[in-house]
Amino acid sequence: MSENIKVVVDAMGGDNAPEVTVEGAVEALKVSDKISIILTGRTEDIKKELQKYSYDESRISIVQADDVIGFDEPPVMAIRKKKNSSIVVGLNLVKRGEADAFVSAGSTGAILVGGQFVVGRIKGIERAPLAPLIPTAKGPSLLIDCGANVDARPSHLVQFAKMGSIYMEHIVGIKNPRVAIVNIGAEEEKGNMLVKETYPLLKECTDINFVGSIEARDIPNGDADVIVCEAFVGNVILKLYEGLSNTLMHEIKAGLMSSLRSKIGGLLIKPALKKVVKGFIGEDQGGAPLLGLKGLVVKAHGSSGADDIKKAIIQCIQFSEEEINEKIKENIITD
Amino acid sequence: MSENIKVVVDAMGGDNAPEVTVEGAVEALKVSDKISIILTGRTEDIKKELQKYSYDESRISIVQADDVIGFDEPPVMAIRKKKNSSIVVGLNLVKRGEADAFVSAGSTGAILVGGQFVVGRIKGIERAPLAPLIPTAKGPSLLIDCGANVDARPSHLVQFAKMGSIYMEHIVGIKNPRVAIVNIGAEEEKGNMLVKETYPLLKECTDINFVGSIEARDIPNGDADVIVCEAFVGNVILKLYEGLSNTLMHEIKAGLMSSLRSKIGGLLIKPALKKVVKGFIGEDQGGAPLLGLKGLVVKAHGSSGADDIKKAIIQCIQFSEEEINEKIKENIITD
Repeated sequence: MSENIKVVVDAMGGDNAPEVTVEGAVEALKVSDKISIILTGRTEDIKKELQKYSYDESRISIVQADDVIGFDEPPVMAIRKKKNSSIVVGLNLVKRGEADAFVSAGSTGAILVGGQFVVGRIKGIERAPLAPLIPTAKGPSLLIDCGANVDARPSHLVQFAKMGSIYMEHIVGIKNPRVAIVNIGAEEEKGNMLVKETYPLLKECTDINFVGSIEARDIPNGDADVIVCEAFVGNVILKLYEGLSNTLMHEIKAGLMSSLRSKIGGLLIKPALKKVVKGFIGEDQGGAPLLGLKGLVVKAHGSSGADDIKKAIIQCIQFSEEEINEKIKENIITD
Repeated sequence: MSENIKVVVDAMGGDNAPEVTVEGAVEALKVSDKISIILTGRTEDIKKELQKYSYDESRISIVQADDVIGFDEPPVMAIRKKKNSSIVVGLNLVKRGEADAFVSAGSTGAILVGGQFVVGRIKGIERAPLAPLIPTAKGPSLLIDCGANVDARPSHLVQFAKMGSIYMEHIVGIKNPRVAIVNIGAEEEKGNMLVKETYPLLKECTDINFVGSIEARDIPNGDADVIVCEAFVGNVILKLYEGLSNTLMHEIKAGLMSSLRSKIGGLLIKPALKKVVKGFIGEDQGGAPLLGLKGLVVKAHGSSGADDIKKAIIQCIQFSEEEINEKIKENIITD
């Protein structure tokens, strides 16, 4: 770890690139003087955006990448063929040790595949999970894994539980985080084959605070800090969270327009409602880390704004300063 | 099918039994003169409840069952040992052809296991899925399977799709219902092994309206009428629906109490908000059917009120009149 943390930002990734990616990078420089940023992508496009801002030129550099990987490209093929894309170029900088972390709001699939194949996993780590924070009534919980590792094995889930604990303790600041496995009942004998095999292994772990099964019903209530599941289930949880919140808020807003009385009431409650939605969603980290790699890869939402990109970059400082990867190596690999 | 449809109601099942189960049974008699009801459970307790109402005594009978299966009992063991429980006694009446359907708000596990082992599956049906209706912005969708059939095979999911289509068309009244499989992306090549193997099989089915994959994000929007998944994933969807709706509504209500302005607004929007919640949740069927059995088994929610029990009983009339099981035999087994 260097005093100066180098973060590569995929300037071309996301719905609003390169506008918001460049803006987010410039904003991040203002927050911390510990970082310098490398933007990967089409130099000309990036320069055009950079011209809008005043910033310390010694702290931002550009590495040219001709190609962009689209959201609809098959990830494995894209990573293999588009060697000169902003994602592959960026990941290679991390692989060669020329940068500490990579942030992208581009294709999730390509970032997941590229993270594992270009940067590579820490020796001994079997899978690299994508671990977003999700909102709950008691603050954010870490949902691990939401990535591409479908059809996981019990040993993978045990590593997810340990890596998730380290992240929640040292990045989010939850002491002795409660770890639970997603299940279809609270009893130990419940579950599918994967959960039944994983449960006793988690119970044996002395280095995590395993509290047993969690039913999906209890996730929004914040009954666990680290929510362990295989990626298919994690993806369903993450996306249903998004879809159901949106649908409910949409229905409520439509309902408020149904009468004069409710319209007036709606105007009165608007600030409180906004506060609730913001409070529930809370401060996120701007992106989800892909854990267990030889370097940090952060996946930001495709629709990220500049503020999200900035937060995703700032997350990399903490990750580096808290030496998360060293902790993963010490705590997991020596087991 | 007889003109007179006989429904067995587990008088002892659920959080508020036998009060609401007996009340629901009496109420159901008023809705339709096509049914008669058999209540299973402790005769004395049931009689005490029945005394509260006036009803046609020729249409309600009691079959004594000494035992009750608790919510926390391991299902397989409970079904095997408690031969004289209200659930096993009730299911045996269906098995022997002395009743057409069984309704219970008792232990889900015991009802699922009992349905399969006591009543038995229709010949050729490999698994009996539990299929609740879930609310969406466009009306209810059928989520199939939410039962105990974890670690399902592709052929099971194909049968779920077909049975679900028949149910949605003939019970809920959706013509040519759109069938989708829960997946982690919209593309055909996405998914875990089960989904990848099932997808082409569903695509080949000419007797259902298969529309492809559905991401969990799009379920609340009502993008499919029949949502096919294996039981673990279905259970996660169902329970997260419940948990997230409750948490969001709770947070909103708490937010409305945060200032005088929002309190007044809250009072004004109360009727509209209630209407939205009711409209979104809509009219359910009072319980979820366990499909593919030699007879109908309906699982009502443990916290059911009398009105839910009534609706669950009424559902049995339609199921019988529409000859759902005959349609399942014709359309699925001859394939």
